[in-house]
Amino acid sequence: MRNLKFKLSYDGTNYNGWQIQAYQENVTTIQGVVQRAAQEIFDEKVEVIGSGRTDAGVHALGQVANVQIVSHKIPAEKVPKALNSFLPEDIRAYDCEEISHDFHARFSAKRKWYRYAVYNHSMPSVFLRNYTFFEKSRLDIPLMREAGNYLRGTHNFSSFCASGSLVKSYLRTVKFLKIWKRQKMIFIDIQADGFLYNMVRIIAGTLLEVGKGEKITPQELGQILESRDRRKAGPTLPAEGLYLIKVFY
Amino acid sequence: MRNLKFKLSYDGTNYNGWQIQAYQENVTTIQGVVQRAAQEIFDEKVEVIGSGRTDAGVHALGQVANVQIVSHKIPAEKVPKALNSFLPEDIRAYDCEEISHDFHARFSAKRKWYRYAVYNHSMPSVFLRNYTFFEKSRLDIPLMREAGNYLRGTHNFSSFCASGSLVKSYLRTVKFLKIWKRQKMIFIDIQADGFLYNMVRIIAGTLLEVGKGEKITPQELGQILESRDRRKAGPTLPAEGLYLIKVFY
Repeated sequence: MRNLKFKLSYDGTNYNGWQIQAYQENVTTIQGVVQRAAQEIFDEKVEVIGSGRTDAGVHALGQVANVQIVSHKIPAEKVPKALNSFLPEDIRAYDCEEISHDFHARFSAKRKWYRYAVYNHSMPSVFLRNYTFFEKSRLDIPLMREAGNYLRGTHNFSSFCASGSLVKSYLRTVKFLKIWKRQKMIFIDIQADGFLYNMVRIIAGTLLEVGKGEKITPQELGQILESRDRRKAGPTLPAEGLYLIKVFY
Repeated sequence: MRNLKFKLSYDGTNYNGWQIQAYQENVTTIQGVVQRAAQEIFDEKVEVIGSGRTDAGVHALGQVANVQIVSHKIPAEKVPKALNSFLPEDIRAYDCEEISHDFHARFSAKRKWYRYAVYNHSMPSVFLRNYTFFEKSRLDIPLMREAGNYLRGTHNFSSFCASGSLVKSYLRTVKFLKIWKRQKMIFIDIQADGFLYNMVRIIAGTLLEVGKGEKITPQELGQILESRDRRKAGPTLPAEGLYLIKVFY
């Protein structure tokens, strides 16, 4: 058996997220499409394992996947081109390498990097509508950064997790958090050892409330974190602003 | 009668171009969609006149249109918001003003500004596939600029016009031409008093041949212009890289 690791970049707009949905037909998922392409090129039944699910509409620059295969027909470096010939234009594979058998795209992941992109302008852009969240109100970046300081480090993030999610632990370690502006775009970059369901989208929604300078002060964001109460945090921002940038192993 | 001038920004990806196609059903055009929205808000039959056609897949940041209406219900400054409530998200109206009766979006136009956007990288981007032309080969920008110098001024541009186009004159004046690079993007900006059919896309295709440093030298581009022979110029690049930036009156 060979274990192949490769990266994927995709525009999530036209997909029902990453994960194959076993009991739903007429649902197109990125995993499903990539798996079919992989079966075509390797000519065997394979399971494409991703580093994690991304929801409908969420994008990726550096999703990581692996497949266990028997076939030796295609050398690793030629796999991206072969896959891409079967993939639609909104999914691209790149950087394939042969990797040890114990590598698992999900379980071996040490850290993930997500970005939330906000288009902060007086008028929405027809070109960015599927790739950013549009926010009309002026945002106070220094205030957002001050609030962001409370999130770094190891915390119980249940206030920033979709209610109803069942997980063993809500403890996560935010290793990197940066809020930066380029022209009319504001980016919220977060790296953590793991993410709860909707965590980045709720953090972004809460930071934007802070940035608007009305509802939530930076200090209050610290209190929201401590409250462990999802209802105190801001809204879950939509999927189209979210990008999986990189997975670290 | 009131004459209203307004601007439009649109993502051309999902449209069969600007112009209403009278004898074809099941064809969605930007003019058609905007006209329906205008009829909704003014509650009368109107004709939306654009500064010119854009082809299927071509985008606009600053298309200009005008409508003659009887209704006095909506003040000019409220027209964009009203229109946008009936328009799909990939078309946005903005900057509406009341203008003199002799203003005609097409006939009054003095100059237009188009941009051709090239994504020059080793790998295509899933996010830019509908918004740029992807070019893998390294492009020599100074060489392209040298070639571009031949195009400025008043010339017979029949070498850069889709063959079979019937026009009274192939003389056009290129008033501005700039080739610029930002990160992996290369932009070709052209302003002229008018454009022949496919003129920007053929100029861009020819400049890219020059930039690749193989087929056409800058001097040869000058000769192609003089030859008045479409077959000597480069290919017509696809619609998705083309943007109507601004119309001058």
